[in-house]
Amino acid sequence: MFIIDSIDRIARISLDRPQARNAIAIQHWTMLSAAIAQVAASDAHVLIVRSMAPNIFCSGADIGDLEALGTDPAMRTRFRTEMAAAFDALARLPIATIAAIEGGCYGAGVALALACDIRIAGPKASFGITPAKVGIVYPAGDVARLKALVGPGQAARLLTTGMTIDADQALAIGLVEERSAAADQGALDLAATIAANSRSSVAGLKRILAADPAADALFEDAFGGHDFLEGVAAFRERRRPVFGG
Amino acid sequence: MFIIDSIDRIARISLDRPQARNAIAIQHWTMLSAAIAQVAASDAHVLIVRSMAPNIFCSGADIGDLEALGTDPAMRTRFRTEMAAAFDALARLPIATIAAIEGGCYGAGVALALACDIRIAGPKASFGITPAKVGIVYPAGDVARLKALVGPGQAARLLTTGMTIDADQALAIGLVEERSAAADQGALDLAATIAANSRSSVAGLKRILAADPAADALFEDAFGGHDFLEGVAAFRERRRPVFGG
Amino acid sequence: MFIIDSIDRIARISLDRPQARNAIAIQHWTMLSAAIAQVAASDAHVLIVRSMAPNIFCSGADIGDLEALGTDPAMRTRFRTEMAAAFDALARLPIATIAAIEGGCYGAGVALALACDIRIAGPKASFGITPAKVGIVYPAGDVARLKALVGPGQAARLLTTGMTIDADQALAIGLVEERSAAADQGALDLAATIAANSRSSVAGLKRILAADPAADALFEDAFGGHDFLEGVAAFRERRRPVFGG
Repeated sequence: MFIIDSIDRIARISLDRPQARNAIAIQHWTMLSAAIAQVAASDAHVLIVRSMAPNIFCSGADIGDLEALGTDPAMRTRFRTEMAAAFDALARLPIATIAAIEGGCYGAGVALALACDIRIAGPKASFGITPAKVGIVYPAGDVARLKALVGPGQAARLLTTGMTIDADQALAIGLVEERSAAADQGALDLAATIAANSRSSVAGLKRILAADPAADALFEDAFGGHDFLEGVAAFRERRRPVFGG
Repeated sequence: MFIIDSIDRIARISLDRPQARNAIAIQHWTMLSAAIAQVAASDAHVLIVRSMAPNIFCSGADIGDLEALGTDPAMRTRFRTEMAAAFDALARLPIATIAAIEGGCYGAGVALALACDIRIAGPKASFGITPAKVGIVYPAGDVARLKALVGPGQAARLLTTGMTIDADQALAIGLVEERSAAADQGALDLAATIAANSRSSVAGLKRILAADPAADALFEDAFGGHDFLEGVAAFRERRRPVFGG
Repeated sequence: MFIIDSIDRIARISLDRPQARNAIAIQHWTMLSAAIAQVAASDAHVLIVRSMAPNIFCSGADIGDLEALGTDPAMRTRFRTEMAAAFDALARLPIATIAAIEGGCYGAGVALALACDIRIAGPKASFGITPAKVGIVYPAGDVARLKALVGPGQAARLLTTGMTIDADQALAIGLVEERSAAADQGALDLAATIAANSRSSVAGLKRILAADPAADALFEDAFGGHDFLEGVAAFRERRRPVFGG
């Protein structure tokens, strides 16, 4: 389901279940958490989440699993907590994370993209959050991330209608941060830019964005780090800095 | 002042005071609350707030009333609390709410639109928040809703200048979620889409959007509901689901 | 470094260090706080923050200073607190504040613009937040203001890449509220509109935007003020109101 690879400092987790349009089954959530843990333990500077399948990013949670939840309350809790654990692990990664979205992105697939720092959409990307079409709702963490990105009005519009929007509309309302002629290449370009920056800066900036109470110490301590020495030296020598791992 | 009607599952509250450009007088706020309570008690799935008058959505609070507030502090409290009660009742409705805005929308008229979940603007819509032009301010709840939609920068720009913006500008800054060639028809189309979805899903999603602490239970319990049974069955049978009330 | 002037009710603080591309050195932060205090004590209704230098708004904190921070932890605290004090004083001014941005706006220069209420960008404006390029991070208050304006996704994109964006892109993501053919003139036009409004209304609206717990009293008390008397009289007489200081 999840293929991990890495080139230079860029790790990728690729969804690879084309026969089910990359639907995520209930047993896949812990696999996703494991894949994220593997990336966290690596020396990657950036993670791209993408699809190996043509014309589909992720069709959401597997409807077959969801059906079983109708009669199994214990599995509902498992589903909710394992899915949330995967998204939270993704959101908490100390490296930058980019969702490269081409083709359909629905339901929990949107939540997967929302848990990344940055979203980049290709020309065939389409987005829909569809729980109201099947009588269920959307997890609290995912709704909060959606609302933070697009505001309460567009969030209400997407959630109550379950409508599908294309890449341009997604960019216009802030559901994605970039529109690219090719999502995979766009994500690689963005990742290369980030990978050339200071890894500790990116980690610190992500903590400050998440309102870490230690932000003041992070700010001050950075001036005592190796990366700042190199950053200043490169600035003096009018060259690009070369940061370590 | 407020005309209530209903077709299928779509209720409408229409402002009908064309001689005063739909200005809302102080005694109207409790009437608005009553109208909202009537909709809440009905089987409507969606509410549209609109105008019966041509070229005006709502010109705001009635200036005649406001003048009286200059010498009557007790009436200030009544004005503030009754207006806030109406907007809060609208915002808390468990069904989706859509403001269909055609023509002018000013002062408290903008606040009325802000208290809806979704705003759709027609070609002649124009928006202005004008308290700084008459020496007063804007209520806390309305400012908070404005800021949540357009961000603190555009909120400051609109509030400190009192400027008027058109439908395209309103869409660009996020003050409305949709721009339509005809606001009433656009709202009906949107409402029909929502009305075909699960009413309990929409109610739950609205609670989760409002950061209800019971969100996890809402998420899990939905899988045990009638609407999910129908949603899954319809999915299996490749047909549209038919949800109950 | 900071030139203060005033015409009518509009004060201006102009950055004037063209030889260093308006870089702000460590000793300048208390000078900025002093300039802001001077404006606060004046009868200005609006403040414009701008540049006297061609093609540069502010290139950020002076890199020469930053280098010294590598070996002087005490100076790091001084840098952080004096910079934050200046930005906080700017953000807390009871009058409307506008950043007029033409040319480059980088690092702490962006933070300076973020601490204003409204940002207006000219055609040559470009923006970059570059700490990750030199191994440091960005202060908590500035990150919070950035995130409030552009959302967590665009904030992450700008901060982790350190990319440069132009005026149109800045407008599209909400980093600036207006795009003007000439930032200085655009800011003056906006300032003139605000300066004609009630100063006490603007002060109150800014407090309510900042979630002041006294918002309800501010709302009610405004109806007892001089500006409301004039506002209503002007409305009755179909003339523009003339508000006092």
